[in-house]
Amino acid sequence: MRDQLSRQSSTPLYQQLHDLLRGGIAAGEWRPGDMLPTETELLQQHQVSRVVVRQALDALVKEGLIYRQRGRGTFVAHPTVDQGLGRIVSFTEEMRQRGFQAGTEVLSAALVAAPEDIAARLGVTPGTELAHITRLRLADGEPLSIEESFLIHAQCPGILQRHDFAGEPLRECLERDYDIRLTGARQSIRATAATPGVARSLGIEPGAPLLHIDRVSYAQDEAPVEYLRVDHRGDRYVLYNELRG
Amino acid sequence: MRDQLSRQSSTPLYQQLHDLLRGGIAAGEWRPGDMLPTETELLQQHQVSRVVVRQALDALVKEGLIYRQRGRGTFVAHPTVDQGLGRIVSFTEEMRQRGFQAGTEVLSAALVAAPEDIAARLGVTPGTELAHITRLRLADGEPLSIEESFLIHAQCPGILQRHDFAGEPLRECLERDYDIRLTGARQSIRATAATPGVARSLGIEPGAPLLHIDRVSYAQDEAPVEYLRVDHRGDRYVLYNELRG
Repeated sequence: MRDQLSRQSSTPLYQQLHDLLRGGIAAGEWRPGDMLPTETELLQQHQVSRVVVRQALDALVKEGLIYRQRGRGTFVAHPTVDQGLGRIVSFTEEMRQRGFQAGTEVLSAALVAAPEDIAARLGVTPGTELAHITRLRLADGEPLSIEESFLIHAQCPGILQRHDFAGEPLRECLERDYDIRLTGARQSIRATAATPGVARSLGIEPGAPLLHIDRVSYAQDEAPVEYLRVDHRGDRYVLYNELRG
Repeated sequence: MRDQLSRQSSTPLYQQLHDLLRGGIAAGEWRPGDMLPTETELLQQHQVSRVVVRQALDALVKEGLIYRQRGRGTFVAHPTVDQGLGRIVSFTEEMRQRGFQAGTEVLSAALVAAPEDIAARLGVTPGTELAHITRLRLADGEPLSIEESFLIHAQCPGILQRHDFAGEPLRECLERDYDIRLTGARQSIRATAATPGVARSLGIEPGAPLLHIDRVSYAQDEAPVEYLRVDHRGDRYVLYNELRG
């Protein structure tokens, strides 16, 4: 977490403080149910006025990220939905839920012959033509994740030309242009170490921990449509969910 | 993955091959939907008879970890339940679902004064007396996870004396002896790097990736009961879940 506010910046101080607290919540420095520092602690720590602190906190309350309890303090809210674990949501939507501005850079987009392991996941024979798209995902302009999508090209012919992968969620394109609706997905979640290449793209050290997600999404008839693998920066991405007793 | 079978071992070869394949599935070397090597590939690779290969595969089929498709091959089964993400299950039960023998070593058990961050999670004032239990969890005798539990001692007085933390699931003790039923939990999941202490306990390198889970479990009235934090070895522990479209 950056712990300095800049007096030189054109970004207002309350906005900087807001971003800093939001970053701390997103990075899990404070977790759901945790009490945030008091107004007095925050204004002393960051050398700003009480008005600035209140404006920053008010904005976080409005975004649903924190809540106030009279006489007790300010607490980190429990996410209202299972983040990343309940249903398929677009990256843009997920970031909105978390209070971040989503950004995307397409690193590569090409047709490839399915290697054996990916063919098995998609239920096609090795060598089948796949559309392979690699995207860097950003949250508030900072690298968060590397996402690789593999689509069975016969199901969505010409998608690399037709679709703006930096702009529109993939599933909207699949629905509109190819009449494919994603009805569900199966995924696995593990912790891995960043390879030098991924580390470079994400701006972290090689070997740094990543939250790695492997997902097969399928359509109406349970037929696989997309194989997705994502490496999230371990220091910036947290999943939340609820368990039944 | 150990890739050698031992002729000197008292463990039958089919059992060794079974354990080796199961380990590969658990570690995600083969993932749900993946095709396993054919019988012929396996017998050549491990220098065993076809009978041994069949016995090993039959055992995996019986455990529900793989399934055969006539004329196509043998595939890794999709877990039938959301593993680790749907409901609170005991470690023993979770390992059984995954086809492992669970083991537990209690590393420490003591009463402690709640530090501020844990007090906030449990909704008590800092300094409140907590029962703190640290356990090493093993799968087939190999270190898998380090688990720290914090219980509000006033809710379960004397639990450190009354309960065998290496033997019985905690929730069974809470129900039987204290009439506390866990009705749900909220958790967060992230990737972290192993500290030297955790690395030593788990038999991995410092800095190696861990799947870190932070969980607050609550009782009938949504009152927090237990704060749990777990570090799972990234190379041995995978979560699975299904998403809705």
